[in-house]
Amino acid sequence: MLREYPLGKRLALLTDLYQLTMAACYFDQGMAEEATFSLFIRKYPANRGYFVAAGLPEALSYLETFGFTEDDLTYLESTGLFQGRFLDFLKGVRFTGEVYALPEGSIFFKDEPLLEVSAPVIEAQLVETFLINALSLQTLIATKAARSVHAAQGRPVIDFSLRRTQGSDAGLKVARASYLAGFMGTSNVLAGKLYGIPIFGTMAHSYITSFAHEIDAFRVFAKNFPRTTTLLIDTYDNVAGAKKAAQVAAEMAARGERLRGVRLDSGDIAAISQEVRQVLRDYDLASVGILASGGFDEFKIAQVLAAGGEVDSFAVGTKMGVSADAPYFDIAYKLVRYGGRPVMKLSTGKVTLVDKKQVHRHYDAEGRMEHDVIALRGESAAGRPLLQEVMRGGRVVRPLSTLQESREYFRSEFDRLPERYKALNDPPLYPVGLSPGLKALQARVAQECAQREVG
Amino acid sequence: MLREYPLGKRLALLTDLYQLTMAACYFDQGMAEEATFSLFIRKYPANRGYFVAAGLPEALSYLETFGFTEDDLTYLESTGLFQGRFLDFLKGVRFTGEVYALPEGSIFFKDEPLLEVSAPVIEAQLVETFLINALSLQTLIATKAARSVHAAQGRPVIDFSLRRTQGSDAGLKVARASYLAGFMGTSNVLAGKLYGIPIFGTMAHSYITSFAHEIDAFRVFAKNFPRTTTLLIDTYDNVAGAKKAAQVAAEMAARGERLRGVRLDSGDIAAISQEVRQVLRDYDLASVGILASGGFDEFKIAQVLAAGGEVDSFAVGTKMGVSADAPYFDIAYKLVRYGGRPVMKLSTGKVTLVDKKQVHRHYDAEGRMEHDVIALRGESAAGRPLLQEVMRGGRVVRPLSTLQESREYFRSEFDRLPERYKALNDPPLYPVGLSPGLKALQARVAQECAQREVG
Repeated sequence: MLREYPLGKRLALLTDLYQLTMAACYFDQGMAEEATFSLFIRKYPANRGYFVAAGLPEALSYLETFGFTEDDLTYLESTGLFQGRFLDFLKGVRFTGEVYALPEGSIFFKDEPLLEVSAPVIEAQLVETFLINALSLQTLIATKAARSVHAAQGRPVIDFSLRRTQGSDAGLKVARASYLAGFMGTSNVLAGKLYGIPIFGTMAHSYITSFAHEIDAFRVFAKNFPRTTTLLIDTYDNVAGAKKAAQVAAEMAARGERLRGVRLDSGDIAAISQEVRQVLRDYDLASVGILASGGFDEFKIAQVLAAGGEVDSFAVGTKMGVSADAPYFDIAYKLVRYGGRPVMKLSTGKVTLVDKKQVHRHYDAEGRMEHDVIALRGESAAGRPLLQEVMRGGRVVRPLSTLQESREYFRSEFDRLPERYKALNDPPLYPVGLSPGLKALQARVAQECAQREVG
Repeated sequence: MLREYPLGKRLALLTDLYQLTMAACYFDQGMAEEATFSLFIRKYPANRGYFVAAGLPEALSYLETFGFTEDDLTYLESTGLFQGRFLDFLKGVRFTGEVYALPEGSIFFKDEPLLEVSAPVIEAQLVETFLINALSLQTLIATKAARSVHAAQGRPVIDFSLRRTQGSDAGLKVARASYLAGFMGTSNVLAGKLYGIPIFGTMAHSYITSFAHEIDAFRVFAKNFPRTTTLLIDTYDNVAGAKKAAQVAAEMAARGERLRGVRLDSGDIAAISQEVRQVLRDYDLASVGILASGGFDEFKIAQVLAAGGEVDSFAVGTKMGVSADAPYFDIAYKLVRYGGRPVMKLSTGKVTLVDKKQVHRHYDAEGRMEHDVIALRGESAAGRPLLQEVMRGGRVVRPLSTLQESREYFRSEFDRLPERYKALNDPPLYPVGLSPGLKALQARVAQECAQREVG
C-alpha cells in the first residue's frame, strides 16, 4: 500500500486566499485570542422545511490532521505575498480548538448552528472554507435524499447518481449522505469499499446492444449473476423486453433460480410499469420486482406513485446527486465571539446570532418534535440540548458514531418529525425561537455596533 | 514527499457496479471486440446555446493510469459477486484503446461528440462512469463561466465559489474550468498551486469584526499587503466603510502606496456602487477599483451593469460554482459501434447517432462560425474537422495543451461564435446538421433494430 497524507494535510491549501491574508494580519498583530464561529444555514431553499446534518466525521478528521506541508509552504512563498516570519509560523499551525456539533444524522432548522468552532482566531479562520464545503455538500444531499426516501413510502431507494455528481468527491459523499438518510445502497463501488455501503447494479443499454439479440444479453447476465439479476428491458421496447425477461425468468426457475427484477429507464413510468406488471402477472412472476430509474427525485417518485405506478423500488440519480432543485445552501460560518466579546456584522439583510449557543428541542406528549429554542450556551433552558462537544484541544473527545449508527439515529429522529413538516411542497415553518438571554444580548450588540461604526 | 497512486489507480473503483457485472458477462462470453462509445450532451438546459469542452487532461490522465489495486480486488472478492477467474483477469486490465476528442476549450453543441472512445468492450465500459463524471463537471462549469465572462463585458471576473462547490474535487475543477473560460483567477489556493492559476483574496466580515474598530482592520491589512489591498466595506455600512477606506487610501498614498480596491458584498449593488464611486471621487481616488461579490452569476452581472452599476470587477461564487440554474447536463456515453457493426438503442425519446463520427465546422467569409455537420468519421465532408485523435493504444499521442494555451484557444474560438448565440436568455439554436452518410446509416440501423427486437 502506498501511504498518502491525511485529509487535513492533503487539503490544508483547499482554502480561500483571504484566510491566509487575514491570518497574516492576525499574526502581525499578535492576535491569538479565542474566536467562536457558528456554522448555520440562513434560509430554506424552495420546498425545504428541515435539514439533515451530515459530514461531521470528515470535518473532524480534517481538523485533527490539519497542517501545511513543506510543499504547500514552498508554493505560498512563491506567491511573494507573505513574509518569511509568517510562513515559519504556518509551518507549526495545527487545529487546537473546541468543536460543538449536532450529531451526524440530526434534523435541524434554519439559523440553528450545525457546528460551533472555538479556537485561536487564525486556526478557526484557516479551516473555514473546508468546513463549509464539506458539511454543506453532505447536508445538502442528505436532506434531498431524506425527501426521496419519504416520497417512496417504504419502497427501497438506491443511489445511481455517480456519473453526474459534481466531481469524484461529490460522487463518494452523495453515496454516503444518501445512505445516511435511508437509501438502501448505491451503485458506487468505491463508496461501497470506503464506507461499507451495500452496492447495487443492473446493466446498461450498451450491454444489451452489444449482443446480436436482447434475449442473449439477458441469458448471459442471468447465467453469471443467478442471485442478483435485474434485467433492463427498455432498450428496444418495454413490453417486448418484459416478455423476453419472463422467458428468461422461466428458464431460471427451471434451474432453481429466481429473476430478481426488471428495470424501466425511460418513457411514462406509471403507465409502462402497469403494462409490465401485467406481463409479469400473465407469466405468473409475482416475485419479480420492478425497479424504475431515469430522472427520479422525490417529486417524480411521488408523481409516479400517485399515478398508480407499479414500482417496487427506485433508482435515483442525477437530480438527487446534485440536489438539482436546490443545488446549494445559503450556509455561513460567522464570527460570533472574539476575545471574550460577542460580535456581529450589520450587512443588509443578513442576521447572525451572537456568541456561543445551544439548541434546545421540545417534544410533545407523544414524543414528536414541537419546537426548538436557540439559547446562549451557558444559559439555563428547558428542552433537550442538541449540540454536543465533539472535539477539545484539537482531539475528538468521544467515539464517533459509525455510519450505520448515524443512519439509525437519523431514522429515529425523522420519525419524530411531524408529517406536515415533511411535505414535499411548501412545508410549514417549524417553530424556532430565541431564548430571553440570546434575544437581549443580540439587541445590545447590534446597538453597540451601529453606534460605534455607523452613527 | 509522500507518493500517491496515480488517478486511474486511485479511482478505478469510482464506477457503477454494473460496469463490473457487465464486464464479467463479456469476460464469460469471451467478448473482446472493439466497442466505440460516443460522449455527448443530448439537450440544452434552459438558456444554454453552446457548450465549452473541458476536462480532457484529467480524462486522459485517468485512462493512461487506469488499473485495479490489490486492495480493490480484495474488496471486490469480499462482495461475493465475482468469480476468481474474472478477478484474476481484472488484475491485468489496462486501458489500451483509442480516443478522439474535441480540444480543451472548444465550443460545441448538442449531439456533437465531445469524445469518442474505441477499445475492447470491457475497457471502454469500465471507464464510462469516471469519464462522464469528469468531463461533465468541467464542461458544465466552463460553460457557465464563459457566460459570466461574456456578461461582464471585459471586466475581470474571479472565482470565489470554493466554500460552496459540491465537494473538494469540484472546488478544484471549478477554479480550473472557470479560468479556462476566461476568469482572471480564483480564491482557491490549492487550485493556484496545482494549476498555476492566479490567486486573489480580500478579507472576510469576521476579520473586520474581530477588531474593535473597522478602520483598525483596514489599516492592519494595508500595512501587511501594501500592493494588493482590497478593503471589504459593507460590514457595518457601505458609505461609512467607503469613507474609512478613503482615509486609509490617503494614508497609503502618503507612504507611496496605492489602495487597490474596495469590495461590496451585500445589498443593491447597482445603487451602492454609485454611492461608493461618488465617495471615491470626492476623495479623488479614481484609481481605486470597486469589486462586487455576493450572489453573482451571468444574470446578476448583466442586471447590475444594465442598472448602471459602477463595478470594475466581479467575484463570482456559488451560482457559478454549482451552475445553479443548470446544475447538470443530460450527458451520455453511448455504444455506437460494436464488433464492426453500428448499434443503437430505441428507448423512448432518446436518439443516439451511430458509429464513429467526426464533426465538421463551417465558417462564413469573416471567419465566424456558421454551422456544423456531424458525419461518419471516414466520410469525406467539407468544413474543419474538430475531433482529434488524442490517444492510441492507451497512450497520449500528442503533447497536451497547457491550461494557458487552452484558455487562449477558447478565447479565440469564442470570438468566432456570433453574438446572437451568446445571448444569456433564450439563445437561438446553432445549426448542426447530419451528413448524407450518417443520415442513411442512422435510418438503416434504426429499421433493422426495430424489426429484429420489436416487430
